[in-house]
Amino acid sequence: MNAQPLRIGIAGLNGRVGRLLAQEVVAGGGVLAGGTTRDGAPVAGIDCPVYSDISQLAHHCDVVIDFTHVSTVVAHGAALAASGTAWVLGTTGLSAAEQQAVDAAAGRVAVVQAANFSPGVTLVTRLARQMGAALPGSDYDAEILEMHHRQKVDAPSGTALAMGRAVAEGRGIKLEDHIESGRDGHTGPRADGAIGFAALRGGQIVGEHSVIFTSTHEQISLTHRSFDRRVYATGAVRAAHWLRTRRPALYDMEDVLGLKSVAE
Amino acid sequence: MNAQPLRIGIAGLNGRVGRLLAQEVVAGGGVLAGGTTRDGAPVAGIDCPVYSDISQLAHHCDVVIDFTHVSTVVAHGAALAASGTAWVLGTTGLSAAEQQAVDAAAGRVAVVQAANFSPGVTLVTRLARQMGAALPGSDYDAEILEMHHRQKVDAPSGTALAMGRAVAEGRGIKLEDHIESGRDGHTGPRADGAIGFAALRGGQIVGEHSVIFTSTHEQISLTHRSFDRRVYATGAVRAAHWLRTRRPALYDMEDVLGLKSVAE
Amino acid sequence: MNAQPLRIGIAGLNGRVGRLLAQEVVAGGGVLAGGTTRDGAPVAGIDCPVYSDISQLAHHCDVVIDFTHVSTVVAHGAALAASGTAWVLGTTGLSAAEQQAVDAAAGRVAVVQAANFSPGVTLVTRLARQMGAALPGSDYDAEILEMHHRQKVDAPSGTALAMGRAVAEGRGIKLEDHIESGRDGHTGPRADGAIGFAALRGGQIVGEHSVIFTSTHEQISLTHRSFDRRVYATGAVRAAHWLRTRRPALYDMEDVLGLKSVAE
Amino acid sequence: MNAQPLRIGIAGLNGRVGRLLAQEVVAGGGVLAGGTTRDGAPVAGIDCPVYSDISQLAHHCDVVIDFTHVSTVVAHGAALAASGTAWVLGTTGLSAAEQQAVDAAAGRVAVVQAANFSPGVTLVTRLARQMGAALPGSDYDAEILEMHHRQKVDAPSGTALAMGRAVAEGRGIKLEDHIESGRDGHTGPRADGAIGFAALRGGQIVGEHSVIFTSTHEQISLTHRSFDRRVYATGAVRAAHWLRTRRPALYDMEDVLGLKSVAE
Repeated sequence: MNAQPLRIGIAGLNGRVGRLLAQEVVAGGGVLAGGTTRDGAPVAGIDCPVYSDISQLAHHCDVVIDFTHVSTVVAHGAALAASGTAWVLGTTGLSAAEQQAVDAAAGRVAVVQAANFSPGVTLVTRLARQMGAALPGSDYDAEILEMHHRQKVDAPSGTALAMGRAVAEGRGIKLEDHIESGRDGHTGPRADGAIGFAALRGGQIVGEHSVIFTSTHEQISLTHRSFDRRVYATGAVRAAHWLRTRRPALYDMEDVLGLKSVAE
Repeated sequence: MNAQPLRIGIAGLNGRVGRLLAQEVVAGGGVLAGGTTRDGAPVAGIDCPVYSDISQLAHHCDVVIDFTHVSTVVAHGAALAASGTAWVLGTTGLSAAEQQAVDAAAGRVAVVQAANFSPGVTLVTRLARQMGAALPGSDYDAEILEMHHRQKVDAPSGTALAMGRAVAEGRGIKLEDHIESGRDGHTGPRADGAIGFAALRGGQIVGEHSVIFTSTHEQISLTHRSFDRRVYATGAVRAAHWLRTRRPALYDMEDVLGLKSVAE
Repeated sequence: MNAQPLRIGIAGLNGRVGRLLAQEVVAGGGVLAGGTTRDGAPVAGIDCPVYSDISQLAHHCDVVIDFTHVSTVVAHGAALAASGTAWVLGTTGLSAAEQQAVDAAAGRVAVVQAANFSPGVTLVTRLARQMGAALPGSDYDAEILEMHHRQKVDAPSGTALAMGRAVAEGRGIKLEDHIESGRDGHTGPRADGAIGFAALRGGQIVGEHSVIFTSTHEQISLTHRSFDRRVYATGAVRAAHWLRTRRPALYDMEDVLGLKSVAE
Repeated sequence: MNAQPLRIGIAGLNGRVGRLLAQEVVAGGGVLAGGTTRDGAPVAGIDCPVYSDISQLAHHCDVVIDFTHVSTVVAHGAALAASGTAWVLGTTGLSAAEQQAVDAAAGRVAVVQAANFSPGVTLVTRLARQMGAALPGSDYDAEILEMHHRQKVDAPSGTALAMGRAVAEGRGIKLEDHIESGRDGHTGPRADGAIGFAALRGGQIVGEHSVIFTSTHEQISLTHRSFDRRVYATGAVRAAHWLRTRRPALYDMEDVLGLKSVAE
């Protein structure tokens, strides 16, 4: 029994994601124990203590959710490890040194690190790896299709690349050696074993991703559609609650969702 | 009442398309009155007279179906006009001079000219034009998605471009000024009023095309899937039969399918 | 030039739809000239005069948007005709007598009457009629697939039935004679010329509808997805603005969207 | 090294499936060692010895592929066990006693038994079980959609039911207690935790199946499309080759495809 409700802190409380996380903490029955902003000033509409220093926040929390920036990763890892506070880390694009700081923290506190906290995307990425393993590139052509809102400035999306990387892992190959993205003009025939990418843009689509395996005889496709951005905050808060009873180690969203123990 | 069955000739009888057309003529209850090959040699498995000269074939036919090559268009047009034989022309990529030869022939005999004889593609292209007119680019982002077999060497497909051109016509703009094809890397946000293209490749897919209009509030999409290549031959033979009772003029597949008189 | 902004009134201002309409009037640059509630009491958060009597409202408006109830149709028609106020009517399920009241009002004022004000649904229904005309039931099997949120208590949806009716109209048949809905168990083979319906339910899906024509050789499908319910209010306000310059007559959303004059 | 090519026999050589299997054996590099017909008469166009007795066939084969009928299962199992010949069994609808005969044979020879030999369907069914386990019915509404040719006389298809059963297994529930199939008319809201089924019919569609999980925030769907029936024969022949080196036991297509050892 958990006599005490979980005390959750939010790094970067006044950003768009930080506000969403704060709402989800409360909606999920947790205690919003505090947050950080650069100057420690309170955030309009969010009722909790605010600090400028992650160490201060850490001392009032069981777990800190952190979607801030790569530049804070080393300091945050040290502060949370020192105070024994668990860490839900959604920052992406870490250098090798920054990743080492995360690994070091995970030796002393429980950490969930993920590029995407959506339960559906986590599951779909895992299934894509299995599909890659079961459907060899000699027979099955793998393509990744994604659609996002009209403001998106790059292609393919990070999630599309993660799905392609999962297919490549399943096949025991490197994605970079087999990528075919954005076909246009005279492309020549599809390369054997290629993993193709195509990008659609329009409206305010939050995110749709498909991985499609096509052979001469059959086609198997797996599609994920996000209806709203809130799903990422929901997943991060779920990870925070899951961490309560975990030993120090580096976990990912597959651990949180229990996918690694699914009957297989 | 048609006392006499229609006598149909096939130009280029020994090509892959020529053979398919010959089968469809017979399946459709027409008389396969003959065909041409370069050397006038008979074609194994096809029981009909064979000529090396289109004029000879023309004199034995009511209509000639011709999917040969742009290099033959001028000569074929002259020969068929001289003998009063109707013409179903599926050759694409004509120069202005070659198109003039077709127009000239259509002053003397009935001609159906089309880039794609599939009833479904013809209909979908027409509907795409109406969608372009009804769904303005200021609100609705138009994207064309196509998938073809792994051997296809170029993108977007000709049919995808025809669908994009239809959307542009509906909007009163030129496709070339608004095309965004094969997004990859840092693309910047979607341009206002752009018409986007994306290409998937895999297996032995005959051809799948979608035109997708997405606004903030809704999405309307129209999709065509071809299950086999036979549909093109079937449409050409249907055009041949339709021509029997037509006056000299240049027609297209929308005429053949009666789409221009559909209640609108 | 419109020197004066359009004065729009909302019948049933305090309902869910009424509030949404009021927001859209303001967002669309119109003047929210007033509304009705049963008791004439003001509506929290909406700043405009409120009346209990439609005639009073009518005298302060150029057009009234009315999504109230069949029981008010006769009275509203008489009041708006008497004051020369245009009418946007979204109430459905009218009896013959109630429809006659609408027709009578349309002899004196301009009226837009529609069951669904979504531009996309209006367009898709129109295109479904054309597809029904161009793709005969002897070759093309027509199926309607819809998906809605888990709370929906009936199937098929009204919009699905409207799409099926459009296909039937295009084919010159009656939907009731050819409907196959909710296949389960031993159904026997598909009836020639049948129009089939299938219903999916899940999550909070606002509404997705597809009409799918499948022959031996090809498949053509048309799909509409609604992302939010706001689209209905947006369409009704668009109809109100369109009415400003119209003569007395009964119009529908195809008129408002200009679909009847689209190049066809 | 396999010095000797595998000798494969076909039970029921003169049926539609039997002929297809014979073609695939040869295409797959095996030796078509013989077949059975009721009267032992040779089969036109297939060049191999034909027997009326399964025991005779068994003595000339390493493995027999059997898609005949439940009425032959007991006799075939006994004959193959007696001669030490492996068995690929595709017959469905077995009684408990017939299944016992299969189990008994599998104590003495290696047997692959499956309801569907398509690699894609096997994989998709397995993934559906994992999705059922990872996406709880309290949040995710599961629906199965299938489309088949116009001649199909029942709904849902056997494969659709197998996919639904896999979802139910993943959730630890019984499909029969939670099935909602063929919604039509006043259905009431979707039951909590229901597994829904919907059936489309049209053209000559070989088989398309989707399992769709929809929550308030996201949707995950998995789709299988069969392009031709040949895939079942290909899978059965693959199973025959796989059996060569196996010990006596009862296997299924997941074993053949190596799915049980896929990194998970």
